[in-house]
Amino acid sequence: MVITSKDNPKIKALTALHRRENARREGVVFIEGERLCRDAIESGAVLREVVVTEANEDWALDYAKGADVTVVSEKCFEKISSTVHPQGIACVVGQPDMAGTIPFRGNGKDIYCYLEDVQDPGNLGTIIRTADAFDFTAVIMSPGTCDPFNEKTIRASMGSVWHLPLVTKTPDEAFAFCSRKSVSSLAMHLKGEELDKAGITLPVMYLIGNEGRGLTDETSAKCTQLVKIPMPGKAESLNAAAASSIMGYVLSTLR
Amino acid sequence: MVITSKDNPKIKALTALHRRENARREGVVFIEGERLCRDAIESGAVLREVVVTEANEDWALDYAKGADVTVVSEKCFEKISSTVHPQGIACVVGQPDMAGTIPFRGNGKDIYCYLEDVQDPGNLGTIIRTADAFDFTAVIMSPGTCDPFNEKTIRASMGSVWHLPLVTKTPDEAFAFCSRKSVSSLAMHLKGEELDKAGITLPVMYLIGNEGRGLTDETSAKCTQLVKIPMPGKAESLNAAAASSIMGYVLSTLR
Repeated sequence: MVITSKDNPKIKALTALHRRENARREGVVFIEGERLCRDAIESGAVLREVVVTEANEDWALDYAKGADVTVVSEKCFEKISSTVHPQGIACVVGQPDMAGTIPFRGNGKDIYCYLEDVQDPGNLGTIIRTADAFDFTAVIMSPGTCDPFNEKTIRASMGSVWHLPLVTKTPDEAFAFCSRKSVSSLAMHLKGEELDKAGITLPVMYLIGNEGRGLTDETSAKCTQLVKIPMPGKAESLNAAAASSIMGYVLSTLR
Repeated sequence: MVITSKDNPKIKALTALHRRENARREGVVFIEGERLCRDAIESGAVLREVVVTEANEDWALDYAKGADVTVVSEKCFEKISSTVHPQGIACVVGQPDMAGTIPFRGNGKDIYCYLEDVQDPGNLGTIIRTADAFDFTAVIMSPGTCDPFNEKTIRASMGSVWHLPLVTKTPDEAFAFCSRKSVSSLAMHLKGEELDKAGITLPVMYLIGNEGRGLTDETSAKCTQLVKIPMPGKAESLNAAAASSIMGYVLSTLR
């Protein structure tokens, strides 16, 4: 049966998921577009519901794997969609639990990134994508960091939000983990030692601060080491995602 | 005299500069906000005109240095501005010439980035900011790369668009320069040698392709070497600005 009325309660409920606070309250993530949906499903996201237009029923047959499939008219899909040119494919998936413990491999190769109040969804997505590329054990975020399951971050991550553990912890909880597991903590700080002379060893967690103000003094003071990326040019600082990319590469060469 | 009418020809002319094609045709860039304006002026951008609200006349006295100052009412400034909360400070500056020759220091430390059809203004701004931080000689762009003087790129560059030469060249023009000056050319390519084993020497130009399709085969084939950033994780590729940040750091350590 195809839903054709925009006033159908199902359409209203799906449209409400545009607002992340609604989706978050229900413990779900609404994603849209063939590539992002397929990537989430193939990465093991828990599929709650597939929503497609009639033209995409075949896609649903291939990917829904027993989950509920809702078929809607194009007009209804436009209402549900938040894009200008909807592809007619969307999914509701379970939001991964971010409150669990920080995973630890214990092979001496663990790399973590801790984000203190990073605010830009695009930066966050790029940081998660890079962490995935360099096989980090997890990305740990302060409670004030922006939501990794907002649409812009999922897009910027190119689906990497589904590939590695994302955990919310306060700085103190993260430092307690580091000291329990003998993980060194590196503050990215303009007053730090130069990266190539800092004698860094794994396992390691590096900390990146908010785009505007950097890492707080309180958090920096609790790190085992302050490091900086040498910048011989005129720019005073690097974008948070750019700094994180460099750290990811450099630390992964130490494995 | 304070302009208070939105129909004033001056207000209309300034409002027209919102559209980059209008500004480009006049060879100027319209920038807004205290930080971005001050940064452009202090970086040596050629100031054509300062536009401020009455509350910001002092700022204009400090920074206009002989350029025309136009004082407008807040209502008029809102019309000129493209931001939601205008700060009441804007400048019209000359657009740097992008058609000139590629600069060459010849000290054996030259680093260039060549961008083939990079489309995202935020990526472009971050790439320019990173190139500035690592003191590149220039950023070279294909004619199909997005405009570095659009507002989003200027913002993402944190003013770095004013700090280093930005030059538009076709790939063939860039390769001709490289062969004249014995600059090696590195294609960032998933089939390349791993970065840390590639034996790279300066001077060097690395090439990054369009976000969607990467570097074209034609351009890759003309490079002296193909290199890749090793990615042990699940992400299939890196964001263009992330890859460029890693290259900038690694190449600057070779100086």
